[in-house]
Amino acid sequence: MAARENYRKIRYDIKKNDILENAAKMFSKKGFEKAALEDIAHELKMTKGSLYYYIKSKEDMLFQCIMRALKMTHDMMDEVEKLDLPPELRLQEVIVGHAKVLTTDFVVGVLRQQELLLPKHMRDAVIQERDRFEQRFLAIVKEGIQKGIFQKEDYKMKAYAILGALNWIPRWYSPEGKLSPEEIGRIMANYLIRGLLTLDKPGKK
Amino acid sequence: MAARENYRKIRYDIKKNDILENAAKMFSKKGFEKAALEDIAHELKMTKGSLYYYIKSKEDMLFQCIMRALKMTHDMMDEVEKLDLPPELRLQEVIVGHAKVLTTDFVVGVLRQQELLLPKHMRDAVIQERDRFEQRFLAIVKEGIQKGIFQKEDYKMKAYAILGALNWIPRWYSPEGKLSPEEIGRIMANYLIRGLLTLDKPGKK
Repeated sequence: MAARENYRKIRYDIKKNDILENAAKMFSKKGFEKAALEDIAHELKMTKGSLYYYIKSKEDMLFQCIMRALKMTHDMMDEVEKLDLPPELRLQEVIVGHAKVLTTDFVVGVLRQQELLLPKHMRDAVIQERDRFEQRFLAIVKEGIQKGIFQKEDYKMKAYAILGALNWIPRWYSPEGKLSPEEIGRIMANYLIRGLLTLDKPGKK
Repeated sequence: MAARENYRKIRYDIKKNDILENAAKMFSKKGFEKAALEDIAHELKMTKGSLYYYIKSKEDMLFQCIMRALKMTHDMMDEVEKLDLPPELRLQEVIVGHAKVLTTDFVVGVLRQQELLLPKHMRDAVIQERDRFEQRFLAIVKEGIQKGIFQKEDYKMKAYAILGALNWIPRWYSPEGKLSPEEIGRIMANYLIRGLLTLDKPGKK
């Protein structure tokens, strides 16, 4: 019985994942307003009724897509933190990891949508998860400052500049471009971390 | 007769400006889809019919708002170029100027909208103007490289990083925050230009 429950849960998660992937594609192609639940159901060979087993409304679908995209960034952060690196290398890996997450088809599609269209309780949940990511990112910078690796001056503005540079990638990134997301991430990390470093460490540049 | 024509043109431009300012506010508050021409007309004590004298449709109104926002960035660039500064200082002033333009109520309201909702010919015109700004921005960086002030390596990615850091400002900027747009721009300029400079110029940092 427990095994069957477990199997059901796995099947549910796989199906839901499928739905969100397709929803992101549809949103990306048509925009949120013009996307229809019927089309997504049709794409997945489901009835609109069975779709409601997984998502409550079109708003809920966009909300779940955004929350999944944010979960991807948190999962990436978890992975990097497991490596137990010093702050400057951790920041580097987080920048590269964030560049990679932000260039997945799923996240590109989701980010193009206007979360302003969501009802307030959903928007609040999105903002909370985004703030949590920002706090984790800032924590790395703060640790670097404590250890004398990063400059303290204007660190918050600089962190916002880094996040902005990264968050803007989906607006110009093309999979047909010369550079891979990993390469883009490495270049941005080198460039953006250089401006954070304290000047009295000539060994680092 | 010529004077009267001229007066008419000025009055037309002032009125149109008013309309676009109000449209940006409405879009910002309600989102594009929910904003209605009637509400904007009502706000301006105009009839919907007289509104059509200035704009053709809601799409046209968003389009004109976006084009006006882009014109603001080009005007800023024109002003900076008149100062005839060396590339590193010109880049600094453009970064500060862009931070200022991006934090005006008008541009914040317009940027929150999804240009994807616009018909293709309008979208193309928007992209063209945005590309033109990007090219002008890149030209400053290229001049700096030619003069040996900026590093050539990955300059395009770095320019995209700068533009991203700036373009993201409206997403977190609050007029109630501690720093003015000018101060934010100066901090970002110092930080982001530092990473561009060639290392063999110790006088510059």
